[in-house]
Amino acid sequence: MSNYPKPLQKLINELSKLQGVGVKTAQRLAFQILGMNDDDAFAIADAITSAKKELKYCSVCGNLTDEDPCAICTDTARDRSVICVVESPRDVSAIERMREYKGLYHVLHGAISPMDGIGPDQINLKQLIIRLQENDEVGEVIIATNPNIEGEATAMYAAKLIRPSGIRVSRIAHGVPVGGDLDYTDDITLSRAMEGRREI
Amino acid sequence: MSNYPKPLQKLINELSKLQGVGVKTAQRLAFQILGMNDDDAFAIADAITSAKKELKYCSVCGNLTDEDPCAICTDTARDRSVICVVESPRDVSAIERMREYKGLYHVLHGAISPMDGIGPDQINLKQLIIRLQENDEVGEVIIATNPNIEGEATAMYAAKLIRPSGIRVSRIAHGVPVGGDLDYTDDITLSRAMEGRREI
Repeated sequence: MSNYPKPLQKLINELSKLQGVGVKTAQRLAFQILGMNDDDAFAIADAITSAKKELKYCSVCGNLTDEDPCAICTDTARDRSVICVVESPRDVSAIERMREYKGLYHVLHGAISPMDGIGPDQINLKQLIIRLQENDEVGEVIIATNPNIEGEATAMYAAKLIRPSGIRVSRIAHGVPVGGDLDYTDDITLSRAMEGRREI
Repeated sequence: MSNYPKPLQKLINELSKLQGVGVKTAQRLAFQILGMNDDDAFAIADAITSAKKELKYCSVCGNLTDEDPCAICTDTARDRSVICVVESPRDVSAIERMREYKGLYHVLHGAISPMDGIGPDQINLKQLIIRLQENDEVGEVIIATNPNIEGEATAMYAAKLIRPSGIRVSRIAHGVPVGGDLDYTDDITLSRAMEGRREI
């Protein structure tokens, strides 16, 4: 039913498979790519292919990397006594952007979600326990899974598994975001903020 | 300054060169592409490369096509007495979507814009005049350039060139968009709508 030449229609279809890219946006992007000079357009295609081919998950922490183990795991300047547990490589980037955390990471690649059929064995959790057993430098595990039901369940489950080893397990604080507005803060966050209050 | 592995940073850079894709969106898309299975990710890269390689401009009308002349120019069911002049291949798609116009097209690939150094020779206008001279079937040229300063200037200029040949030259109507609101219509559009009023 389309009046586009086939290769163009194919490009639009492929682009619109991306989340957040609707048909209109895909059309706009496709026409824009066709309007580029060959080198620029091929550079996008190459970047996709190379990123997909060259990036793998670090065998130690599970983070995205082009060399195994990853640059964070092999960085001798980092504090090897703390491991921050996150759900995805994007979370590692978010924490790294802050430039304050100097410990290591462990990427779970998901969170426990019985509704979606994701149990503890479907995420990279067993590997964390093995890593902690094989490595007695670690004194604290900070669980930084997302502050939602799945993330909380994962945090609770991980804490239960780690605690017997005597390693300190902590959870990042929940509360009102800085620059936020009390009035616009949802009830649960507000109640967590009250619970987590500290003396000043 | 980035903490991403190089191939990932390169992918983010390439994606953020697309108009309307900021760094945050590029990051989201990059991580999404990395999360796809290889086939799906490579399909996007392939679609870009093939579209860029296989699509060219029709030597008759200038529309994007994978075969020359294009499917519209070679379609014997179409009315060869009318040529609709548009600025870009996207405009052809927009008019084709309407499923009412059955004539041919001519794509200018731009509009006259002295401010941007685009004169009549920088757009595909000479080719239209040659096409009209070589082809005596054409009875009407509909100028459907965009309703802005550049599009109007182009329409006026093209009309001046075509008129001596005795071919009828028309311009698509300007007015209040259907479903629009008079109150929100700008003054110029409203004045054009009044000017173009028709007896009912």
